[in-house]
Amino acid sequence: MPKTAKSTQKAPSAQSGAKSTGPAVSPLAPKSFPKLPPLAGIRLATTAAGIRYQQRTDVLLALLAPGTQVAGVFTKSRTASAPVLWCQDKLKGGEARVLVVNSGNANAFTGKAGLDGVRDVANEASAVAGCRPQEVFMASTGVIGEPLPTSKIIRVLSDLARQTAAGNWRAAADAIMTTDTFPKAATATANIDGVKVTINGIAKGSGMIAPDMATMLSFVFTDANLPASVLQECLSAGIGPSFNAITVDSDTSTSDTLMLFATGKGGKHAAIAKASDKNLTEFRRALDGLLLDLALQVVRDGEGAQKLIRIDVTSAESDGAAKRIALSVANSPLVKTAIAGNDANWGRIVMAVGKSGEAADRDLLKISFGGHVVAEKGMRAVKYNEATATKAVSGREVNIAIDLGLGKGKARVWTCDLTHGYIDINGSYRS
Amino acid sequence: MPKTAKSTQKAPSAQSGAKSTGPAVSPLAPKSFPKLPPLAGIRLATTAAGIRYQQRTDVLLALLAPGTQVAGVFTKSRTASAPVLWCQDKLKGGEARVLVVNSGNANAFTGKAGLDGVRDVANEASAVAGCRPQEVFMASTGVIGEPLPTSKIIRVLSDLARQTAAGNWRAAADAIMTTDTFPKAATATANIDGVKVTINGIAKGSGMIAPDMATMLSFVFTDANLPASVLQECLSAGIGPSFNAITVDSDTSTSDTLMLFATGKGGKHAAIAKASDKNLTEFRRALDGLLLDLALQVVRDGEGAQKLIRIDVTSAESDGAAKRIALSVANSPLVKTAIAGNDANWGRIVMAVGKSGEAADRDLLKISFGGHVVAEKGMRAVKYNEATATKAVSGREVNIAIDLGLGKGKARVWTCDLTHGYIDINGSYRS
Repeated sequence: MPKTAKSTQKAPSAQSGAKSTGPAVSPLAPKSFPKLPPLAGIRLATTAAGIRYQQRTDVLLALLAPGTQVAGVFTKSRTASAPVLWCQDKLKGGEARVLVVNSGNANAFTGKAGLDGVRDVANEASAVAGCRPQEVFMASTGVIGEPLPTSKIIRVLSDLARQTAAGNWRAAADAIMTTDTFPKAATATANIDGVKVTINGIAKGSGMIAPDMATMLSFVFTDANLPASVLQECLSAGIGPSFNAITVDSDTSTSDTLMLFATGKGGKHAAIAKASDKNLTEFRRALDGLLLDLALQVVRDGEGAQKLIRIDVTSAESDGAAKRIALSVANSPLVKTAIAGNDANWGRIVMAVGKSGEAADRDLLKISFGGHVVAEKGMRAVKYNEATATKAVSGREVNIAIDLGLGKGKARVWTCDLTHGYIDINGSYRS
Repeated sequence: MPKTAKSTQKAPSAQSGAKSTGPAVSPLAPKSFPKLPPLAGIRLATTAAGIRYQQRTDVLLALLAPGTQVAGVFTKSRTASAPVLWCQDKLKGGEARVLVVNSGNANAFTGKAGLDGVRDVANEASAVAGCRPQEVFMASTGVIGEPLPTSKIIRVLSDLARQTAAGNWRAAADAIMTTDTFPKAATATANIDGVKVTINGIAKGSGMIAPDMATMLSFVFTDANLPASVLQECLSAGIGPSFNAITVDSDTSTSDTLMLFATGKGGKHAAIAKASDKNLTEFRRALDGLLLDLALQVVRDGEGAQKLIRIDVTSAESDGAAKRIALSVANSPLVKTAIAGNDANWGRIVMAVGKSGEAADRDLLKISFGGHVVAEKGMRAVKYNEATATKAVSGREVNIAIDLGLGKGKARVWTCDLTHGYIDINGSYRS
C-alpha cells in the first residue's frame, strides 16, 4: 500500500532557528515535520548567501546521480520568470544533475540580465558538478522585478557541493521558504514490480497562490527508475486534483515550478516504458497522495490563514464547470471573510455560484456546511439550524458542499479564509 | 454643455441622523451631497419599516407620472433575486408608474415565496397608485437567503404614497443604503432640441461590487420625453465605461439593478425616435457623465477603501483583452494590499498582467505609477525612483498605467485598495 508518512522529526515551530522574523506559525500547520529518509542518488546542502534575507538560509543545492530523469510543470503566467523559461527549455533533454534554488528574489521581470544570470549560475554549477549546463535546473522565489545578485549564488556553489550530504531534507525545505511560516515536506513509499521505492518532496508557498499554479515551488524526488516521459505523464496527471486545486488569493505567480526527479538508484525493478504500466499503479497513487499532501500544506500556510476550507461541487454540467464554480466560491473575498468571522453566510455561496457564469438552477441548488443542508429548493432549508451551521464554519477545517442538480460534473478545491493577517503580510511585504 | 452638479446641499457625514452604526464615512467620499432639483413627474417618500435595521429608513417609494418610460440593466448572476426577475419581465411593457426599493433584505434565494412577495407588493402598490401591477418595479438589497417580510412593506405603502413629495432626493439616497457610509447621488442637465432637461440619479453599493454589475442599485430619472427603446439603448451603452468598469472585490451580486425612468413632463422638445438622433448627443453625454459619477461614488465607498485606484490599459490586442487585463490587476488581492500599504510593488502588476491569460510580451510591457515609469523593456526602468514611485501610490487617488505595446486595445477601470476595514465589515455583516 502506498502511504504518506507523517511521523515526527522536528516540530515546525522550531524553524531551525534560522527564520528570525515574520508572523507566528500557521495554526493549520501539521503537528510535526515528517521524517524523510535519504534517497539514493540525491545529496543536498543549503547556505545563507544573503540574497535578501539576513541570517537565514536562502540557497539550496541538490546534486543528482548521473542519468537522473526529470519532468516538470510550470506557471502559465505570460510574464514567467527567467528560471522558469530556462527550465522549460532544458526539460527537453530529460536529464538532470543539479538543482539550484534560491529564496528572496524571484528573478522575474529582470530582462536579459535575468536570463544571463541563470546561464551564469548553470555554467558554474555544471563546472562544480561535472555535467553540462543544460542538466542544471534552477528556481527562484521572492520579490519580482529586482535584479538577482547571481554572484552571491555563484560564489557559494563549490563550497555547497562539498557540503552536500544524503538527507538534509529539513534544511532544504527551510531554505526555499519566503513568507511561509513552516517548512513543507512529505514522503511516501510504493512498490514497483515488488521493489520498494521512496518518494520525497518539499514545497514552499503561502501567498500568490492560485491554480496554474501558485507562488509555489515544489521538488519531488524518487529513487525509482523511470524515464522522463513517464515521469512527465505521472506529474501532469497528478497536479489536477492537487496543486491545481488549491487557491489562497487567486493570484498566479510568475515563478511556479514543480519538478519531479527520478535517480533510478534504488532497488532494481522492471523497466517501465509507459505511465499506464500496471506495475506503476501503486507508485502513481503514492505520488498523487504526496502531491496532495504538499499542496494542502501550502493552503494550510496561506497568508493569514486560520481555517482550511474544502469545497466540493457535484452534479454540475461538466467537471470543468464544477471546477470553475468551486474556484469562484474559493476565490470570493466575501465567502472567505464570512468564514473567517464564523458566519454561516450561505447567501454568499449562492452569490459566488451565480457569478461563476456556469449553469445553475436556483431551485435545484443544494448547499451544505459540514454535512448540514443550509439551502435547497430555492430557499433556506426547512431544517436549517443556525447553531449547527455556525458550528460547521467555526472550526479549523470547514467543508462546503454544493450540489448543482444538473449533471455529472464534480470538482474539489481547497482554500483558506481571508483575515487581517493577509492584509498585514501583504501591505508591507517588500519593506 | 452637459454638466454634473457637485454643489452642496448637506454634508454626507451628517447621514440624516438615520444611520446609527457602522464604520466612519469613507475618506474618499465627496465633500458634500449634491443639490438635486425636483423633477416634474416624480414624487418620493421614505420610511423606516423595520425590515432589518432599526431606527433607519429602509423603504423608498417613487410615484411616477402616467406614461413614464423605463429601461433597465441587471445582474448577470445565474442566481438573480426575485425582484430582478420581476423587473426583467415587466420591462417589456416599457412603462413604469411606481418604484419600490427596500434595504436590509435582498429577497434573493427565497424561492417561490420571494416571487410571491414581489407580486404582493406590486399588487398593493398598483392599488395605491392607481396603475397596473406590471407598471410597478421593485428592487431589494441586503442579506441573501432570508425571507423578505413583505407585510412590513405592504402596510406602509398607502401612508408613503400620501407623503410623497417633489424633491426628497437625499432621503431617497439614504433609504437604499446598506453598508454604504455615505448616500450617493448626482445631477446633470442637458439640452435636447434647445430645451433644457434634467437627470437625477441615486445609487447604493459598497461591497460585492464587480462588473455585470455590483451589489449595486441605481435609479436614474429624467424629465425628458424619451421612449423606452431609446432609453434602453442609451443606458446599455452608458454602463460599459461606468458601472461595468468598477470593481471592489470581484464579487457580483444577485441583485444588481440600474433603472432609467423618463417622465416626459419637462419642457416640450422634438420627439426622439432613435438613440442616434443628433438632438440626443448632449443628453447622452450628460447621462454618461452622471453614470460614471455614480459608479465612482460606489468605488469611493468600497468596503474599507482608503484609496481610489484607476487602471488604464493601452496597446492591448483588443479592447476586450485590455479590460480583462485591467480587471485582473484591479481584482488582485496582492496588488490591492500593496497599494493599501503605500508599497510601489510593481512586480505584482507584472504578476496580475501575466495571470490574466491575455497576450503580453515581457519586453514590450510598460508600467507607470502616477506617470512615473517603473518598469519597461523587460525590467525595472532605468530611471526608476523609489521615492517618486512610493509617493505615487501613497495618496488618496492612485493612477496605474499599463501599456502592452501590442495593439490598439484599451480600457479603464476603477477599484479601491484592500484593507483591514474590508475584513472588519465582511467578517460580521450578518450578525
